[in-house]
Amino acid sequence: MTPSRWIPLIGWLHGYRRDVLARDLVAAVIVTLMLVPQALAYALLAGLPPEVGLYASMLPLVLYALFGTSATLAVGPVAVASLMTASALSGIATPGSAEYVGAALVLAALSGLILVTMGVLRLGFLANFLSHPVISGFVTASGILIAASQLRHVLGVEASGHNLVEMGSALVAGLPDTNVTTLMIGLGVWGYLLLCRRHLKGGLRRLGLSATVADLVAKAAPVSAVVATTLLAWGLGLGQQGVALVGEVPSGLPSLALPSLEPELWSSLLPAAVLISLVGFVESVSVAQTLAAKRRQRIDPNQELIAMGLANIGAGTSGGSPVSGGFSRSVVNFEAGAATPLAGAFTALGIAVATLALTTPLAFLPKATLAATIIVAVGTLIDLPAIRRTWAYSRADGVAMLATLVLTLAHGVESGILVGVGLSLGLHLYRTSRPHSAVVGRVPGSEHFRNVRRHEVETDERIAILRVDESLYFANARYLEDTVMALAARQPGLEHIVLACQAVNVIDASALESLEAINARLKDSAVTLHLAEVKGPVMDRLQHTEFCHELTGRVFLSTYDAWRALHDNVDAASDRVCGEAGLAASK
Amino acid sequence: MTPSRWIPLIGWLHGYRRDVLARDLVAAVIVTLMLVPQALAYALLAGLPPEVGLYASMLPLVLYALFGTSATLAVGPVAVASLMTASALSGIATPGSAEYVGAALVLAALSGLILVTMGVLRLGFLANFLSHPVISGFVTASGILIAASQLRHVLGVEASGHNLVEMGSALVAGLPDTNVTTLMIGLGVWGYLLLCRRHLKGGLRRLGLSATVADLVAKAAPVSAVVATTLLAWGLGLGQQGVALVGEVPSGLPSLALPSLEPELWSSLLPAAVLISLVGFVESVSVAQTLAAKRRQRIDPNQELIAMGLANIGAGTSGGSPVSGGFSRSVVNFEAGAATPLAGAFTALGIAVATLALTTPLAFLPKATLAATIIVAVGTLIDLPAIRRTWAYSRADGVAMLATLVLTLAHGVESGILVGVGLSLGLHLYRTSRPHSAVVGRVPGSEHFRNVRRHEVETDERIAILRVDESLYFANARYLEDTVMALAARQPGLEHIVLACQAVNVIDASALESLEAINARLKDSAVTLHLAEVKGPVMDRLQHTEFCHELTGRVFLSTYDAWRALHDNVDAASDRVCGEAGLAASK
Repeated sequence: MTPSRWIPLIGWLHGYRRDVLARDLVAAVIVTLMLVPQALAYALLAGLPPEVGLYASMLPLVLYALFGTSATLAVGPVAVASLMTASALSGIATPGSAEYVGAALVLAALSGLILVTMGVLRLGFLANFLSHPVISGFVTASGILIAASQLRHVLGVEASGHNLVEMGSALVAGLPDTNVTTLMIGLGVWGYLLLCRRHLKGGLRRLGLSATVADLVAKAAPVSAVVATTLLAWGLGLGQQGVALVGEVPSGLPSLALPSLEPELWSSLLPAAVLISLVGFVESVSVAQTLAAKRRQRIDPNQELIAMGLANIGAGTSGGSPVSGGFSRSVVNFEAGAATPLAGAFTALGIAVATLALTTPLAFLPKATLAATIIVAVGTLIDLPAIRRTWAYSRADGVAMLATLVLTLAHGVESGILVGVGLSLGLHLYRTSRPHSAVVGRVPGSEHFRNVRRHEVETDERIAILRVDESLYFANARYLEDTVMALAARQPGLEHIVLACQAVNVIDASALESLEAINARLKDSAVTLHLAEVKGPVMDRLQHTEFCHELTGRVFLSTYDAWRALHDNVDAASDRVCGEAGLAASK
Repeated sequence: MTPSRWIPLIGWLHGYRRDVLARDLVAAVIVTLMLVPQALAYALLAGLPPEVGLYASMLPLVLYALFGTSATLAVGPVAVASLMTASALSGIATPGSAEYVGAALVLAALSGLILVTMGVLRLGFLANFLSHPVISGFVTASGILIAASQLRHVLGVEASGHNLVEMGSALVAGLPDTNVTTLMIGLGVWGYLLLCRRHLKGGLRRLGLSATVADLVAKAAPVSAVVATTLLAWGLGLGQQGVALVGEVPSGLPSLALPSLEPELWSSLLPAAVLISLVGFVESVSVAQTLAAKRRQRIDPNQELIAMGLANIGAGTSGGSPVSGGFSRSVVNFEAGAATPLAGAFTALGIAVATLALTTPLAFLPKATLAATIIVAVGTLIDLPAIRRTWAYSRADGVAMLATLVLTLAHGVESGILVGVGLSLGLHLYRTSRPHSAVVGRVPGSEHFRNVRRHEVETDERIAILRVDESLYFANARYLEDTVMALAARQPGLEHIVLACQAVNVIDASALESLEAINARLKDSAVTLHLAEVKGPVMDRLQHTEFCHELTGRVFLSTYDAWRALHDNVDAASDRVCGEAGLAASK
């Protein structure tokens, strides 16, 4: 319980030297260049005024630098969280209104409290409920929804909606109102960014730049588009020609203030806050872990929950909106050489300078430029081949992924992810509710036992050995009853059933009840029940149960011991009655 | 797809002989005697007019006889379903009103449709979600709630509530209004029934009756109490002295009619109907299976869903309320010798005769008698020692049981069972999210490998063999990543990590993603990843994945092969590169 456990910065700050400072500063400059347009763009996506994106890129980054364990995770507004924010707030207030901005603060603060609570209670494992296929389907669908939602800014029309159908029909209805100048800017930036992405890096390398530098310059391409179209809009007075511009951005730093404490607002935002927290956390942790592993570093997921939570509380008390770790910015931060979380704090400083100095020119930035930036950026989120790949590997996972994808597109982010989580839980339980088991026989002359259906093995009509290939718990306990009773009914001369438990890691109370029922029913049929290869921890528990005392047969250390005792009538030294077996069964 | 699969009666009716008929008739007479007071009592418990209990004991029994697979399950109104019915309807209408009765019909029909749908889609496994501790805690709590709810009839006061606190305070408030005559009848019957239960069977046996006959006569004791108190109430005119009587019961059979089809009513009753269906089904199936096993018979759970569903639809269209298989009546039916489901149909006939002939005397039956009957009957549901037993066996199961029990008592049946189910799912996922794994070493001179912490084994600082004791899926995939990366970080000279997968029955898409990440990260650290003892079905799937092609190491048939190859540099004939291993790995 040292302070450096809770504030990791204390642990490494004393070793902070000039060369590390230089690396962090360089990374911060590059990330700042990338973050300014992104912060504005994601605010636009979330339906918030542009300055909210800038405010969400200051205090949260400083707090993460203090409490986070990843040296390279770049915190701030991100695409998916912004989409989820828009979805959560749209039912509560009109986008852009003071009420809407206030609700975004509550959403950020609430997400932050949830994350900190989870971190303190060490509930990081809850994020595991979001299986990979669900996250992947959800992120792909979000990418598509985000791109679709930005098309209206490229066309310069009014159109909104919560799912692809609503967005599509609103866009089609708005088509006649398309502003041609806006469309030209939007398509121009879009094409320029695509070109940069495909060819700029290669071109720069041919000019003699190193791969890393070429990559960083290519990633900063949106800045040139922002500068060029801002100058164009200012020089040609495009605002008067109906081109939507970012407009006046208040200069100066955000002031600290508590968000609204209205209980009704908090409780109505709670479900959305839970989802935003979990999704943001899962994404951040996987980015942070991937980058940390490249440098042989480790991150602490529970401390990450606390750091990410405090960053969100910071956003909620300094005029921001929900934040998390961004994928593309983190990679840039990593490649630019960020060595400690202080790089993030320096980025916050860069954003503060931009907020003080650049608000006048930014007012002339066309929204279409930002929209095109977002559309190109979310292209990396969309991974359609993953569906085919997952489907080919596992039908159940494919179904969960596809359902999440389709439902998110057709019905919105919240129902998509909830149904996905429910479905992956249900499919997991269904899968384990019919555990694989096999009747095994002895490989002649050996101590090995194999599936009678796959191998030529020795069997005995008086003995059935059933290998159970799954832990026994409530979801599959009744299925085991059915399997064993069917086995007993099928083999008329049966005298012994042996359950080989080498793959049974847990027997819960429901399964214990089923074993008791199996034992009693087999007893009624004059069949003796034995166990074999029970693992140490499992046997420790069975030891003191009613079942153990009433078991009609024995607990054998190995399947071979059972075979020798029941088939050859040779008692191995190692087999015991149930009450004593635990002592010897430890594996 | 023969007709007898869907209507089992067709399968056995042609072999129906006179001796079987005689057995079924005897059982039907005994069960009818038991069912008449129970049907009235459970209607009272559900807040319904007495005739509803009788109506629910006719058509449903006939339908179950046609479609059911259990020879002895006695279908009809039962205590727990009646309590759940009262809880579901209390928010919708005033108990006893026409609206309330109508809602009970909808509840029965809806439960029936749910059960039939589950049966046709073969979704019987969904009942597995109700783990044994949850059911057990719920049934105990229901028994306590039912007994508490009947105390008001014993005292003769007005008092109601949905949980123990509400019931208790209403009872205390009502105490001054206690009707002494009612109390005397109630306590008299209560004491009489307890005496019968404890001593009547023994007394009858001493008089020379056989154990079975003595038991059946003892179980019919409530009939004598009903007859005696009815005569008393009629002879002394107790109705005029403020003793609550059953009152006028309409004579004649119920008429068939569709229940209300109001969509709002249906949707508001849906959650309760799902719970009633599942709880009723789980209870019925376990009773039916236990009794069937005693006679070496089998029941078909999916056909039971259909039969129980049609019985409920029958109840909903013939003036009844939700029905399921009753425990005590089924045992009596079994012991009385019921040989086929026709015994149930004959019971329905008996109830029809009672409904036609006995309604005039039944009007004088004191409600206190019925209440005392219920209180004594539900005594068998309450199993408090099970809590201690379950807790001692498994903390997690004990917590789930206790939470269900306490919440059902304190907050009502629906929240109790929902929280119980959620908790047992959550605890299961938590348990499997931190799978047991062990670093193993070679037992010197053998082919066996054991936990390095528990045994004196041979190890190699260049090689770490990790035995994974759980299937790998989304809930534990990230934990595996942590475990492996921690292992790599701890052992500096490490060159090889071998995952021994003998207990891994499934690797889902999330776990596959984690394995890919582990492989890539270990590669960055110049550590080679190998697999060993991968099961046939698991290998079949891995075969065609990206992971399989990128795996830096090999897939060994056995841990010993891996040891030989990596430690002794002796390649076993059996080890393969990943792409071919599946062919040989089948176990």
